Amino acid sequence: MSSTTTSLKIGVLGGGQLGRMMIQSAIDFNLDIAVLDPDPNAPCRPLVADFTEGSLKDFDTVYTFCKGKDVVTIEIEHVNVEALKKAASEGVKVFPQPEIIALIQDKRKQKTFYKAQRIPTADFVLTDSRQDVRAHHAFLPAVNKLGKEGYDGRGVQVIRTKQDLEKAFDQPGLLEKLVDFECELSVIVARNERGETKTFPVVELSYHPEQNLVEFLFAPANISSEMETKAAALAVDVIEKLDMVGLLAVEMFLTSEGEILVNEIAPRTHNSGHQTIEANVTSQFEQHIRAILNWPLGSTDAVSPSVMVNVLGEDGFSGKAKYQGIDELMAMDNVHIHLYGKKLTKPFRKMGHITLLDSDMESLKKKARIVKETLKVIA
Amino acid sequence: MSSTTTSLKIGVLGGGQLGRMMIQSAIDFNLDIAVLDPDPNAPCRPLVADFTEGSLKDFDTVYTFCKGKDVVTIEIEHVNVEALKKAASEGVKVFPQPEIIALIQDKRKQKTFYKAQRIPTADFVLTDSRQDVRAHHAFLPAVNKLGKEGYDGRGVQVIRTKQDLEKAFDQPGLLEKLVDFECELSVIVARNERGETKTFPVVELSYHPEQNLVEFLFAPANISSEMETKAAALAVDVIEKLDMVGLLAVEMFLTSEGEILVNEIAPRTHNSGHQTIEANVTSQFEQHIRAILNWPLGSTDAVSPSVMVNVLGEDGFSGKAKYQGIDELMAMDNVHIHLYGKKLTKPFRKMGHITLLDSDMESLKKKARIVKETLKVIA
Repeated sequence: MSSTTTSLKIGVLGGGQLGRMMIQSAIDFNLDIAVLDPDPNAPCRPLVADFTEGSLKDFDTVYTFCKGKDVVTIEIEHVNVEALKKAASEGVKVFPQPEIIALIQDKRKQKTFYKAQRIPTADFVLTDSRQDVRAHHAFLPAVNKLGKEGYDGRGVQVIRTKQDLEKAFDQPGLLEKLVDFECELSVIVARNERGETKTFPVVELSYHPEQNLVEFLFAPANISSEMETKAAALAVDVIEKLDMVGLLAVEMFLTSEGEILVNEIAPRTHNSGHQTIEANVTSQFEQHIRAILNWPLGSTDAVSPSVMVNVLGEDGFSGKAKYQGIDELMAMDNVHIHLYGKKLTKPFRKMGHITLLDSDMESLKKKARIVKETLKVIA
Repeated sequence: MSSTTTSLKIGVLGGGQLGRMMIQSAIDFNLDIAVLDPDPNAPCRPLVADFTEGSLKDFDTVYTFCKGKDVVTIEIEHVNVEALKKAASEGVKVFPQPEIIALIQDKRKQKTFYKAQRIPTADFVLTDSRQDVRAHHAFLPAVNKLGKEGYDGRGVQVIRTKQDLEKAFDQPGLLEKLVDFECELSVIVARNERGETKTFPVVELSYHPEQNLVEFLFAPANISSEMETKAAALAVDVIEKLDMVGLLAVEMFLTSEGEILVNEIAPRTHNSGHQTIEANVTSQFEQHIRAILNWPLGSTDAVSPSVMVNVLGEDGFSGKAKYQGIDELMAMDNVHIHLYGKKLTKPFRKMGHITLLDSDMESLKKKARIVKETLKVIA
């Protein structure tokens, strides 16, 4: 950050909770941030003077938004890449780079990239239609993923049997061998323009059995230091092979054979890094800002073990959000509540998250269950 | 926080850095915050949808601002108390209570309150004019304080000799015996409506020799645990005797005889609590919110020793602020930068603060000196 940093104009595509927490962190650096989002009630809306209501997928809207910005970044990858390419060609710094966003928008390209770059990942075949998936029944049990537009658990389903094949996606996608994994891990890695990289400690993800959404996150992951090193090195390898600037979340499987496979990547701040706000020296949100502005990256050291609990809209409730049980949570020590300012709830919508800190992981896990049972978002 | 909290309307009188950091913390709780400040470029301005530009001292402006709010609080005590009293009489919750703000606006009333309540404080006499101060020359060496309108070191001066008497304030004020102190301490204490109180650990303040502004803050203070207990108990005693709801900063002298005397109090978040953002489980800003909304108070436990350095405008520079040396600071581990978004700098203006964390206080102190020398705010 030079003496002129505070006059930089930064544009963020997307106004959801990831943008909101980034802006919350950016307040400390006097940054001038503008946000584009189609929802006039987006979580970022009340926090920025410069909010544009508009489509993230429309070329003109995105291009016009980027004009006059010094740096443009994203908090969701479903954006118009062509507009970003044009803005970048005219001198706007776009991080992550548009080509990387394009790669990640399409899970087919993502997987093909891993294969070409010898990045370990589950075996797969590309499929164009339901018909096509059916033809690969020898590949089962497998995970069927839509190529595009998947998000927050949508566009991903398990196909175990021939019967399941009936529900296969009838659009371009892929079929991936179901991995027999010990646990799911995530490493968030940052890289700035000068090529400096830093990884956050490996975390372990526990998914909601039905919704394919992270329910609990445990930091650090309960794995050997050898596996930690391997996972961190893999994350660095991926971001370097992408030649990417910004923050990259690398979700991985640790298999029963001690192999680590890349599952999916996201070129932005990520649900698997929310605990860094309290549990690490630098938060993922500050690290993202440091990376895209080419500042020195901050220390990622953990200051405490932690568990993160996603606060999801209760099944069966839609409408104006009400929060039950928060009083009880507020009375618990070292329980940090983050609500995302969403006015409306719906089943399994991400409404907030809670981070718990404690030196002992077992008591953390117990407390996390209590937190989960205590807090309900209803309408 | 009940299920309806997020529809509470909160008004803040003052839009400076204290309000800004409170809003930054309040983002996590979906609170609807409005700010009143005379400066259209106030640090809070870009962070709130509802900003009113107007005088904090004008009855009508303050009263109109309070109308329709559920809770009103302050981040500066120089506000129209009569308007707050009227709003409170009409059902708006005003914390700290207007009567307490009135008491604290006038150092003469403050000192008289300590005396009446047997709260230990330095001996003093009330003075109405320079003439009056002169008449008390037997009281020297002493500190001459203006009754009203002092802030950030203004309105306070040391009168050592008869010669110094020439510069005595020619307005109602007081003359206070110069205390032979070992160190200056501060305890921030919170109290909610149900009477729950919690103190932050005692910190030690090191003042700039000329400007009477905090230059460094050390947490924890280098004092015995007996003195810690005594200081904390004194802070609780003061807030209970005031019957105050909110956050109270109690600045104290530890004398060479091991006595603790109350120096000054501020009924709001305070410069001596900025390190709590990183160094304590709950920050003073969140604690203030918890107190005024009658939520359970958060744990004040320290997670690490810390030093806070105020970032003051460099002497000799006025105009559009530029920050020299921030790049170097960004490269130092566990150095947390907070800039206040002030467009213009002037000599000794508070432009930001920096918090350093480390397990060893001696290396922290060395690093703080380096930080101080590295960062310059010029124009």
